[in-house]
Amino acid sequence: MINKLVEKIKKTGAPIVVGLDPMMKFVPEHIQKTAFAEYGETLAGAGEAIWQYNKGIIDAICDLVPAVKPQIAMYEQFGIEGLVAFKKTVDYCKEKGLIVIGDIKRGDIGSTSEAYAVGHLGKVKVGSQFYYGFDEDFVTVNPYLGSDGVEPFLKVCKEEKKGIIILVKTSNPSSGEFQDQLVDGKPLYEIVGEKVAQWGEQFMGDSYSYVGAVVGATYPEQGRILRKVMPKTFILVPGYGAQGGKGADLVHFFNEDGLGAIINSSRGIIAAYQQEKYASYGALNYADASRAAVIDMKEDIAQALASR
Amino acid sequence: MINKLVEKIKKTGAPIVVGLDPMMKFVPEHIQKTAFAEYGETLAGAGEAIWQYNKGIIDAICDLVPAVKPQIAMYEQFGIEGLVAFKKTVDYCKEKGLIVIGDIKRGDIGSTSEAYAVGHLGKVKVGSQFYYGFDEDFVTVNPYLGSDGVEPFLKVCKEEKKGIIILVKTSNPSSGEFQDQLVDGKPLYEIVGEKVAQWGEQFMGDSYSYVGAVVGATYPEQGRILRKVMPKTFILVPGYGAQGGKGADLVHFFNEDGLGAIINSSRGIIAAYQQEKYASYGALNYADASRAAVIDMKEDIAQALASR
Repeated sequence: MINKLVEKIKKTGAPIVVGLDPMMKFVPEHIQKTAFAEYGETLAGAGEAIWQYNKGIIDAICDLVPAVKPQIAMYEQFGIEGLVAFKKTVDYCKEKGLIVIGDIKRGDIGSTSEAYAVGHLGKVKVGSQFYYGFDEDFVTVNPYLGSDGVEPFLKVCKEEKKGIIILVKTSNPSSGEFQDQLVDGKPLYEIVGEKVAQWGEQFMGDSYSYVGAVVGATYPEQGRILRKVMPKTFILVPGYGAQGGKGADLVHFFNEDGLGAIINSSRGIIAAYQQEKYASYGALNYADASRAAVIDMKEDIAQALASR
Repeated sequence: MINKLVEKIKKTGAPIVVGLDPMMKFVPEHIQKTAFAEYGETLAGAGEAIWQYNKGIIDAICDLVPAVKPQIAMYEQFGIEGLVAFKKTVDYCKEKGLIVIGDIKRGDIGSTSEAYAVGHLGKVKVGSQFYYGFDEDFVTVNPYLGSDGVEPFLKVCKEEKKGIIILVKTSNPSSGEFQDQLVDGKPLYEIVGEKVAQWGEQFMGDSYSYVGAVVGATYPEQGRILRKVMPKTFILVPGYGAQGGKGADLVHFFNEDGLGAIINSSRGIIAAYQQEKYASYGALNYADASRAAVIDMKEDIAQALASR
């Protein structure tokens, strides 16, 4: 799957992942109305609304980018019905040839981590049958519990040729509270980064590992260091756009080959029509606004990489 | 909710939480058979089997303990149908007067953490209506992302008078990889513990905070230290029984008042009938075996506390 990601990035020329993090306030009124007319103002209605909203965006951007990253929390907040919309979204994206990174930030120990891995990447056994639960291609994993929490994911990844992406240095303002604590002069995120590189060595694709890392665009200097600590690790970079990261901040996350990083933008793309810049599209054409925002983002990154 | 937990612990005399972490290999054959006869060897069949299995255990133990802790991963592995069983379990436990600690170990940032908080503890808005998603009483939270990840949970907890329990020092063998790293001579878990105490001060019940902590029974010495670092924090202690923690290891997690800790046992109780000690109950009477295991555990803890 990491080879497929690299290949698709080369083909599209866009090291971009679109964060499918639907909030009801992003969903255009005409979509909400239709969904509520059919299901009422219920959790099922909300699920239908975000699914239809996603579908429009996916159709508009699927030829431009290699991957999408649905944030499961935004679905889970609507309970079971929200998760039904999550599953529909995952399946539809895969149908459209997109790589799906499930942003689930799970992490537990032993058999529990294995259950998450099985549910999101692998197959679960029922009697004599095997079934995929959510069936994403990659998932994000929280490393706080150490190797016991990560190894069960690796086991399933090897079976399925899928990958995980581990939180190293997150994009939020308070990420430093624990992640920046100095251990013998070295910040914790660097120690986690070293571990990620080590875990990743066990499971390499052609040029990059099946074990990736999350490093926020809002911390370019740390990105530069972590790029060297984890040379074979693909870095998923959130925090571009809405969170303040700019094209020029991104160059350090890439290797010399122009690869090794994939930049996420969520509301900057999916809610583009609500920005002044793309307002002329209007709510009815929200998906076209998203397409325009992807094209602009691709250009911004290409320029930044060209001028480094 | 923390006051209710304290009250129920006093009433039952059992600082015990039963981990409802069903694995198919624990579910007695007669239950699997009935479920598969109705739904086939499908994800729906698995969901029905674990729900019926849980129901038997809940009926058998609900008068003995204050709380249960369903581990969501064990349900999530069966996809949507598994989560339907999770939701049925949560609702049924509450109907039976049990406090439900959702062991979800979620943690993200800003609006994403808020979505998890809303989905598991609070109400989500759909049009002009509000709905509970999963509606647990407490949930476990991963602290790796810092305050940005925790504050949104606190906001929802305040509205709902519910609580969170934050991972501090987990029970697994490799928990030390990151959690024990020394920062100016102080292990990271202690720094996290100090933060938990600080977050907890903002939201106090009568004697304990609505913000609790997870500290593994397998690390009694660290438990002793953390007990002092977080005097007003209720400690959820996993790792008793199957993971190797013993009654005598537990005393340091409690305050002088005999409160301040609640000990989790999962497979030691729910799969008791598979242990030699309780084998005479047989698979048909698996729930009676669970009841016997709870009574023995209560005795073990009471003895340990009495002899300290």
